Amino acid sequence: MVAMVQSLPRVYVDQPLAPDIRVIFTRDQAHYLRDVMRLGTDAAVAVFNGHDGEWRVGQLDLQRKAGFGIATEQIRNQSSVSGPDLFFAPVKKTATDFIVAKATELGARALRPVITEFTHTGRVNVERLQINAREAAEQCGRLDIPQIGSPIGLRELLGSWPLAQSLIIADETGESNSAMKILNEIRVENHAPAFMIGPQGGFSKTELVFLRTLPFVITIDLGPRILRAETAVVAALTCWQATRGDWA
Amino acid sequence: MVAMVQSLPRVYVDQPLAPDIRVIFTRDQAHYLRDVMRLGTDAAVAVFNGHDGEWRVGQLDLQRKAGFGIATEQIRNQSSVSGPDLFFAPVKKTATDFIVAKATELGARALRPVITEFTHTGRVNVERLQINAREAAEQCGRLDIPQIGSPIGLRELLGSWPLAQSLIIADETGESNSAMKILNEIRVENHAPAFMIGPQGGFSKTELVFLRTLPFVITIDLGPRILRAETAVVAALTCWQATRGDWA
Repeated sequence: MVAMVQSLPRVYVDQPLAPDIRVIFTRDQAHYLRDVMRLGTDAAVAVFNGHDGEWRVGQLDLQRKAGFGIATEQIRNQSSVSGPDLFFAPVKKTATDFIVAKATELGARALRPVITEFTHTGRVNVERLQINAREAAEQCGRLDIPQIGSPIGLRELLGSWPLAQSLIIADETGESNSAMKILNEIRVENHAPAFMIGPQGGFSKTELVFLRTLPFVITIDLGPRILRAETAVVAALTCWQATRGDWA
Repeated sequence: MVAMVQSLPRVYVDQPLAPDIRVIFTRDQAHYLRDVMRLGTDAAVAVFNGHDGEWRVGQLDLQRKAGFGIATEQIRNQSSVSGPDLFFAPVKKTATDFIVAKATELGARALRPVITEFTHTGRVNVERLQINAREAAEQCGRLDIPQIGSPIGLRELLGSWPLAQSLIIADETGESNSAMKILNEIRVENHAPAFMIGPQGGFSKTELVFLRTLPFVITIDLGPRILRAETAVVAALTCWQATRGDWA
């Protein structure tokens, strides 16, 4: 990162934001602002709730177990990212946490775990993933938090797919065109296409054959090396944002 | 990942490879092949050493504490990636491990830690990072292992920079052109440019001013959100490989 960003600490709150409104921090947030960021009473915090934009909050009163402040002015208008939806097969805990955090940084609109034939992880803690997404949104400056959907089986997902939206899948067979070529040329109707990344070990042969029969599925090639699932997530979303998304 | 790759388990060995040569596995490798992959004596392993290509090794003799096999045929010729060199400010342990593994998957030629003003991590375990790179190479199918250089100070690095090679830096100020625009247009002389990613908190103001005076430094923009150092590594290398590197 080249720039030193002189920015306020950012926290998400689950309450309305308006002029002079009293903002209530959670115990963890009060601890973070007081003991980690070492903010005094004259400091300020940037606060957002996902729909009222970003507010400067001052007149801080940070105690050990609770904290308060007063919203003084709106510093950014509300905006939502218009990036791709991401469907991902849950992998190991650390890698899944990573997928959620990085997809948030890279502007995914919503995330949903997909259970495929080779998916090893039976249980997914959606609540924990939602907290990861919120923390990543705080850090990367997003004003909205991507929704983490409940896990869905691959067949069920595909059976109810909205035909107007493309579903882009990374293909390791070497038979697809390069990501850049396809993403540069893809037609976008109402919103960005969705991306889907399979588990370690990929999709099964049956799944693959089925996926290739679907008119909304588009496969892309992500180079000659075998990428881990979490790397493929970052690479695919980067390719989109850099060519057709909000980096372009 | 779409494809189910039917590939042999891959391991790196530090010995010559030639027809009928006896291949000696380490204790950890023998354990992995015997108890994790559950290979029998009639199974085969793909083995590489960084310079003799990839060999099929059969006639396995896997014991609890040691393992052997016989190299039967070369299955791939030696090749080296021609991707960018990566200079990175070491961050926290997990994130640094991640940077090394992902840069290996994404075809970085060599990696070197750079100590900048805001770099928090004093000590870098180069040996451990080299092991990470080797494991990532085993998994992603690379036949070479990126060298991890010893840590170097930013000023020292820049003072001995070869002028013919560009050094590309992610710029968070919003003043640079988009990564795609710059990478599509950049002139490449002998080999790929190098990339450098700063620590959490970025480069200092003094470092920034100095960097911008250097004729070989090129800054790129990686979008409107603040990326973590490890995300910026994956994003920058992806942009390169997808447009000018071996994904194109």
